Amino acid sequence: MTEQRYFFEDFTAGRVFPLAPKQVVASEIVEFATEFDPQPMHMNEEAGKASILGGLAASGWHTASMFMRMMFDGWLSRSSSEGSPGIEFMEWKKPVLAGDTLSGRSTVLESRPLRSRPGIGIVRFLHEVENQDGEVVMRGENPIMMRLRDAPEIMA
Amino acid sequence: MTEQRYFFEDFTAGRVFPLAPKQVVASEIVEFATEFDPQPMHMNEEAGKASILGGLAASGWHTASMFMRMMFDGWLSRSSSEGSPGIEFMEWKKPVLAGDTLSGRSTVLESRPLRSRPGIGIVRFLHEVENQDGEVVMRGENPIMMRLRDAPEIMA
Repeated sequence: MTEQRYFFEDFTAGRVFPLAPKQVVASEIVEFATEFDPQPMHMNEEAGKASILGGLAASGWHTASMFMRMMFDGWLSRSSSEGSPGIEFMEWKKPVLAGDTLSGRSTVLESRPLRSRPGIGIVRFLHEVENQDGEVVMRGENPIMMRLRDAPEIMA
Repeated sequence: MTEQRYFFEDFTAGRVFPLAPKQVVASEIVEFATEFDPQPMHMNEEAGKASILGGLAASGWHTASMFMRMMFDGWLSRSSSEGSPGIEFMEWKKPVLAGDTLSGRSTVLESRPLRSRPGIGIVRFLHEVENQDGEVVMRGENPIMMRLRDAPEIMA
């Protein structure tokens, strides 16, 4: 990754990193659902309207995947990320519908260097994804490993 | 969903539901990464080998999405699922590499009817995804809402 700007030391508690915005496209909802989650409310408008989701709605896993790209474009691609061990929790709060525009932010909760892996620290984030009405559609917390500023690069 | 066989009452604590197996295909790893998570180790073999993942490795969100389909094909499509409010936790334990064959299971942890929504209950699951060597590559817990056997159908 070129043009790295954010290292472990830059992720101080309370700092906010915006996610890149993303328009939710009907054909992408159906494409994702066809491959990974072919439940009727993710596959066509009529079934979506008949469901509690109220319209053609993205799979929660699609929303999570769109969030990943929003994070990548928003800030992660310019960080010293070494990947993540997992998700602490993730809540799907509101339906994500075709035509929605998503935005949001990652907020640093805390950070600490890893004793077991010198040169690497863990940063815990709160991620929030909102729709165009300012409603939080998904939120969650997860830890991401970040290289310290002067640590040798591990990944290509 | 036709041929429903599993209702809330069938998800008793300790019962195990196998996931459908899934072969991890290199082109699918790259295709998913291109759209959702274009970090180098998910995009090409050389970068993967140079990383701590040791090869062309699926994005964690791709593994989660493959798991969703394994669950759908394994048992969810024949259940009275009304969707899920989120993920309690999800751990990416081992790299998921091109050529791996994934399998696994969903185990019922507990269940209870929802007071707020008559006819619906919450079932908490432990999900475990393994590779061909029996190593757990991903595990997590999440609650899924299930219609009771005699409740009226909500979704199409």
